[in-house]
Amino acid sequence: ANDQPQPAPPQNATGPLSPELLSQVDRFWKAANYLSVGQIYLRDNALLREPLTVEQIKPRLLGHWGTSAGQNFIYAHLNRLIQQTRASIIYISGPGHGGPTLNACAYLEGCYTDVHPDITQDEAGMRLLFRSFSTPGGIPSHCGPHTPNSMHEGGELGYALVHAFGAAFDNPSLIVACVIGDGEAETCPLEGSWKGIEFLNPVRDGAVLPILHLNGYKISGPTVLARTPDEELRALFTGRGYEPYFVEGDDPALVHQSMADALNHCCAGIRAIQQAARSGHPGQQKPWPMLILRTPKGWSGPKEIDGVPVEGTFRAHQVPLAGVRENPEHLKMLEAWMHSYHPETLFDSDGHPAADITALVPEGDLRMSASPHVNGGRLLKTLDLPDFAHYALAVPAPGEVIAEAPRKLGEYLRDVLRQNTQNFRVFCPDETNSNRLNAVFEATDRCSMRPTVSIDDHISPDGRVMEVLSEHLCEGWLEGYILTGRHGMWTSYEAFAQVVDSMITQHAKWLEQCREFPWRRPIASLNVLLSSHAWRNDHNGFSHQAPGFVDNVLQRRSEIVRIYYPPDSNCLLNVFDHCLRSRNYINVVTCGKQPEFEWLTFEQALAHCSQGASVWDFATNDGGTEPDVVLACVGDVPTLEVCATSWLLQKHVPGIKLRVVNIVDLNALMSPDAHPHGMDNITFNQLFTRERPVIFAFHGYPHIIHSMVHGRSSEARFHVRGFQDYGTTTTPFDMVVLNKMSRFHLAIDALKYVPRLRSQVSDVIDFFQAKLHEHYVYIRQNFEDMPEIRNWHWTADFIQPDAPPQL
Amino acid sequence: ANDQPQPAPPQNATGPLSPELLSQVDRFWKAANYLSVGQIYLRDNALLREPLTVEQIKPRLLGHWGTSAGQNFIYAHLNRLIQQTRASIIYISGPGHGGPTLNACAYLEGCYTDVHPDITQDEAGMRLLFRSFSTPGGIPSHCGPHTPNSMHEGGELGYALVHAFGAAFDNPSLIVACVIGDGEAETCPLEGSWKGIEFLNPVRDGAVLPILHLNGYKISGPTVLARTPDEELRALFTGRGYEPYFVEGDDPALVHQSMADALNHCCAGIRAIQQAARSGHPGQQKPWPMLILRTPKGWSGPKEIDGVPVEGTFRAHQVPLAGVRENPEHLKMLEAWMHSYHPETLFDSDGHPAADITALVPEGDLRMSASPHVNGGRLLKTLDLPDFAHYALAVPAPGEVIAEAPRKLGEYLRDVLRQNTQNFRVFCPDETNSNRLNAVFEATDRCSMRPTVSIDDHISPDGRVMEVLSEHLCEGWLEGYILTGRHGMWTSYEAFAQVVDSMITQHAKWLEQCREFPWRRPIASLNVLLSSHAWRNDHNGFSHQAPGFVDNVLQRRSEIVRIYYPPDSNCLLNVFDHCLRSRNYINVVTCGKQPEFEWLTFEQALAHCSQGASVWDFATNDGGTEPDVVLACVGDVPTLEVCATSWLLQKHVPGIKLRVVNIVDLNALMSPDAHPHGMDNITFNQLFTRERPVIFAFHGYPHIIHSMVHGRSSEARFHVRGFQDYGTTTTPFDMVVLNKMSRFHLAIDALKYVPRLRSQVSDVIDFFQAKLHEHYVYIRQNFEDMPEIRNWHWTADFIQPDAPPQL
Ligand SMILES: Cc1ncc(C[n+]2csc(CCOP(=O)(O)OP(=O)(O)O)c2C)c(N)n1
Ligand SMILES: Cc1ncc(C[n+]2csc(CCOP(=O)(O)OP(=O)(O)O)c2C)c(N)n1
Ligand SMILES: [Mg+2]
Ligand SMILES: [Mg+2]
Repeated sequence: ANDQPQPAPPQNATGPLSPELLSQVDRFWKAANYLSVGQIYLRDNALLREPLTVEQIKPRLLGHWGTSAGQNFIYAHLNRLIQQTRASIIYISGPGHGGPTLNACAYLEGCYTDVHPDITQDEAGMRLLFRSFSTPGGIPSHCGPHTPNSMHEGGELGYALVHAFGAAFDNPSLIVACVIGDGEAETCPLEGSWKGIEFLNPVRDGAVLPILHLNGYKISGPTVLARTPDEELRALFTGRGYEPYFVEGDDPALVHQSMADALNHCCAGIRAIQQAARSGHPGQQKPWPMLILRTPKGWSGPKEIDGVPVEGTFRAHQVPLAGVRENPEHLKMLEAWMHSYHPETLFDSDGHPAADITALVPEGDLRMSASPHVNGGRLLKTLDLPDFAHYALAVPAPGEVIAEAPRKLGEYLRDVLRQNTQNFRVFCPDETNSNRLNAVFEATDRCSMRPTVSIDDHISPDGRVMEVLSEHLCEGWLEGYILTGRHGMWTSYEAFAQVVDSMITQHAKWLEQCREFPWRRPIASLNVLLSSHAWRNDHNGFSHQAPGFVDNVLQRRSEIVRIYYPPDSNCLLNVFDHCLRSRNYINVVTCGKQPEFEWLTFEQALAHCSQGASVWDFATNDGGTEPDVVLACVGDVPTLEVCATSWLLQKHVPGIKLRVVNIVDLNALMSPDAHPHGMDNITFNQLFTRERPVIFAFHGYPHIIHSMVHGRSSEARFHVRGFQDYGTTTTPFDMVVLNKMSRFHLAIDALKYVPRLRSQVSDVIDFFQAKLHEHYVYIRQNFEDMPEIRNWHWTADFIQPDAPPQL
Repeated sequence: ANDQPQPAPPQNATGPLSPELLSQVDRFWKAANYLSVGQIYLRDNALLREPLTVEQIKPRLLGHWGTSAGQNFIYAHLNRLIQQTRASIIYISGPGHGGPTLNACAYLEGCYTDVHPDITQDEAGMRLLFRSFSTPGGIPSHCGPHTPNSMHEGGELGYALVHAFGAAFDNPSLIVACVIGDGEAETCPLEGSWKGIEFLNPVRDGAVLPILHLNGYKISGPTVLARTPDEELRALFTGRGYEPYFVEGDDPALVHQSMADALNHCCAGIRAIQQAARSGHPGQQKPWPMLILRTPKGWSGPKEIDGVPVEGTFRAHQVPLAGVRENPEHLKMLEAWMHSYHPETLFDSDGHPAADITALVPEGDLRMSASPHVNGGRLLKTLDLPDFAHYALAVPAPGEVIAEAPRKLGEYLRDVLRQNTQNFRVFCPDETNSNRLNAVFEATDRCSMRPTVSIDDHISPDGRVMEVLSEHLCEGWLEGYILTGRHGMWTSYEAFAQVVDSMITQHAKWLEQCREFPWRRPIASLNVLLSSHAWRNDHNGFSHQAPGFVDNVLQRRSEIVRIYYPPDSNCLLNVFDHCLRSRNYINVVTCGKQPEFEWLTFEQALAHCSQGASVWDFATNDGGTEPDVVLACVGDVPTLEVCATSWLLQKHVPGIKLRVVNIVDLNALMSPDAHPHGMDNITFNQLFTRERPVIFAFHGYPHIIHSMVHGRSSEARFHVRGFQDYGTTTTPFDMVVLNKMSRFHLAIDALKYVPRLRSQVSDVIDFFQAKLHEHYVYIRQNFEDMPEIRNWHWTADFIQPDAPPQL
């Protein structure tokens, strides 16, 4: 049918593969390669039964060939391993831009057809697969939710290994094969991820098998690790706690055998570690096996094009023959390249994969694209949650109790940990205590595999609190953990949550796309608790003062984004319980850890949180009529200042009519079109009136509120104060003064916008301004806030209290 | 004066230090420790001449003792090394939360007084130093611009080592001593930074001396590296290309000698590598020396408090004796602790440091706090820039030329590199080519220290294009490079610029604070070019589509933030030349790399960019009167769509009066109060009218525009379309359709908001809507955009063109 020489059957190099198995693996690889090339180029003539014409080529050639050949090779070998060991293995594709590879392999496994029924395992289906790749209405060029064997969005490099560890935790029988590109290996998140084994307990956790794929290049330059001699690589990975197995070459027959051999050793090594640990005789912790594979980039593709080398070079990265539509010579080369795989031998006359190829495919859920771990929702068990009413804080009257809000949450989480000992973990960059969640240590420890010493505090290999000083690892482990069907939370300093902005973005994009595929079952939400926040970072300074993490989250589609600012302990409990029950969201909960007033009883908190926003009666005196001004607040510190503003104004401006609105669910401010939690205009106007000025104090940057109220009645009446990037190590009240969000600023604002009172309040405004000056002088002399600030709390008679309530 | 035993003079352990030098180093250390404790606790009685009373204790005890003792130790030893070798050394404090340490050491060196003249080297000055630490109006608890020996904002952990390499590049005689906390060493950015030596050329660059400080703990848990046995550490760092020297102990006398010994070896090792390389005989690239120091956390502080161990444990992290104001016992312990340093021997009767201590201080600019490298503006040389007019692109008429905008910029940058061969570098995660800046490789190479092979493309140890697949390293190296007085730029995929959101935040905070200290000389701006942007990521999919990097930048104070969206090649050149001349800003320039229309001639671009925003006459037909609707655009793709909208409307709606406004300088939209580039209301209303509807197409998320126009006349008339997080691998036009920003959407919007035309345009609206449907069907069949989209370009007669202009 064509003039290509028949490929030499793979040489019989010595090794563990029988000739038959060797041929099966090789032919699976070739078939996957063929399918990968087809996806990039063809819109017709899928099996090349006719001579290839320009019309059969897609008008836009998009995709990445370079990584695909090597990844197909690895995939084929893992199938062999699963077939022979019946191990439960999943595949994580670090260079996820190699979308064709996972599509091709899932297609050969039959799973692609299971989830995309129109892509059948025959010529028509293959044609559709090719046509859909990187085309409008089709599938993207990278791994993503549409690829049944991908467990994450593969486009942003760096997170393969951290996700692999997250997936392995509490999955004792799983092996996570994690392919890491040599370019990807240069990213900092990837470099930091190797130390996952310091937190991986072979008794309760599964294994991660890193496969470092040294194909030599990233986009245009060589990679650091590919140019590092083997001895240095050995030292490096030994130092990281691994035992590297090297596989290298470009002669498939030889590399097949050594790959199979290395994989056998790795698998045996993993089993040995696990057996020793699980039989109670861990002995000395052994290094974990890993595999280093050196093969050419774009292996089996065109060796040379127009006189320049391509296979084994950076030129193989994307589309090696880019001019096939214009250049008949190139078209011929493409045809020859595709024929070199001999599709007519790989697929039968219907286009179905040949029997020996499908014979390599493991059975049922052992197929890597059918593993429930890659579609974690299939394994998700609802958490057994304690009744959160048990952790209620008694609040006899608003502001009469002071507490550190996360403490009660800590007790609740302690019991969540007790009741869910295998599918819930807490991830935190060493701040669990600092964030006042200490009670969790009554239920469990911090996790570490190294020997402990007597002065250590709650550390053991069995700990379920994962503390590593890396926001990347904490958040990434949590992603891997929930993507494989478990539950958890990540707590971080607010400012440093931004360290993982782009990771959150990628996870969000995954969730957004999953909604298009009903077979992707819902997973637990990604729960983020920010409790060392910008306004109260007492030991730390300006670097720790940045509330912008939510700005990035809010850029994502509203279907998956939930932002809460509980103003006190009872609200925090309410919100968090809700978050732990939710699915497929990114929940961001911001609530300070410092001693602050408690405002609502448990029942009040329940009602308030279920509405998302409501009028706070105790601080309101409008009697249900139109107030002069609405005071609105989002966040614990803004709530404090707004309550104090109401108090000050009622004390100093008799007759003023005020309404205080507290918003716990930030998204409630949006319109129902813009967010499912959004308030309709009637509700909105009931809360905020139609025309009255609204003095708004917000925890974050003011523009968020402006953009949220855009389109509401008289939007220009919303005067928002919030964080303006002013700060340092100073007193708590000075922080709100520096950012012009103090009770005095808010009170002055309010008076300025109430024309009815303008004539009679200039003295009061002067008085408040004088207070600001007094504050300025006082704190510089006394290093703490003025007594009237320190002692203030809500009093119904507006008499200045002499002392704060007790903690 | 007190009942403490006299400290045993340091034992005469063998080592390089003479007894005299040993005593000097030890006493410098003690003095720094004393000053560190004083900063945390005292507001009076600085020299403890009287018994310590509660009134002399600050009301709020803030700061970090744990890291300070060890860092003071290192600092003292580096001074000894400088004294004996006259090496030019700077000190980077990884755990920059140890603010007291750098303050104390700069104070002993006299530099603190140089820059803060009220903090004199006597009792009064010491008292002021103590009082100012972590108090209102004073200085923050972390290293920052106020600390003369700090070169970066020290609060967010992870960037010490990447900054160190940035500082060392092109500084052949500098040694950057980089102290890395063992907690910090767990962060991913830090782990990724070790490979800096792969890019450090000993011929032209200085040296980095990493000092890994294993004090055992982070906040509450032990650290991974502190629990790693020495052999494993040796393997790890050998694999990373270093030769580790270990120093360990808690007996000062012994540790002093071994520290001095190790530092001598490290320094000699550095010099040997440099001499070999610089004499043209590099031989085999040697491992670079590094130092691993194991000493107790909070060394020399209280050993035990209330029966629990403190020194050497996590309890020493912040304020070990936190209850001194309430607990007289603790107060006594504090007093004893401070007396244990024997301040009366360390400071003379005036409170001036003793002569033997100041004798250890190096001279003049050799003092680490006086090094100009730490106040890089002192060394800044203005770039020798070519005349950017030479790189103008001829644009005979708007939209008649198609070009890849960054190509001309590449030529300009090539010549910048040629004319500035020692203080300008380009940093990029392997995308310089992909971003069409190829011309730079006519002037220089990519940098790599490893042997190259024949197929490599422009790679050498002398390359000035720093390509590593890590946004963290690219951006961090650039920060280190400019903070030490040089110039550069970082170019990245728009989506992945978000990887370093928090690093940008910290750098911005540094710049914001520097404005308070005139002695901090202006440095070059941080220039960011985003040219593979959300709208045109053709080979890649949804993961590469996220324009939110600017959202984070815009959270910072307007004094230091500049955001540009040049719509074509000539504007890009203009803007970039401006950026390279600017100081102390973060400049973010977004301009696509794909072939797009050129709109403005060089002169027009000059005028447009200098105004920041202007009416584009060719696409406007209002004859200077009030238009029916204003079409506004920011960004290259929005500009294309808005011009096409104007064309479509003029073609299909005779009599419609339109105005097109293009904004190149995003900040121009803000009010002059909010940003120095902000337009006053008169100019704003001249551009946008007072009341007319404005249909706005924005490159990023719409809310940015809403918040910027808040407060302008009739803000509700701004109808903004922008990126809404919809995307995949699809056609260019489909991207704007998916996000509802296409010419058809904009045209329909415009017609809806023009009441005058409402009755007569329903057919046109139907026609545009039908076009959207036609598009939907067409691209699914043909995999490319409709001919009328592909061929469209601006025509003055509104006749649909048959072909696009040539590239
Ligand atoms: C964080 C991030 N930065 C940059 C890119 C752009 N990018 C896509 S592929 C690639 C090179 C990948 O090299 P490697 O990991 O070696 O993969 P392979 O060689 O297998 O294609 C780069 C830099 C990206 N996808 N993610
Ligand atoms: C990115 C980041 N995450 C978290 C923190 C909070 N934090 C402050 S100090 C600290 C522990 C630092 O430990 P180490 O680096 O060992 O410093 P040292 O022991 O010398 O204090 C942590 C986690 C931070 N400053 N930066
Ligand atoms: Mg590679
Ligand atoms: Mg430490």
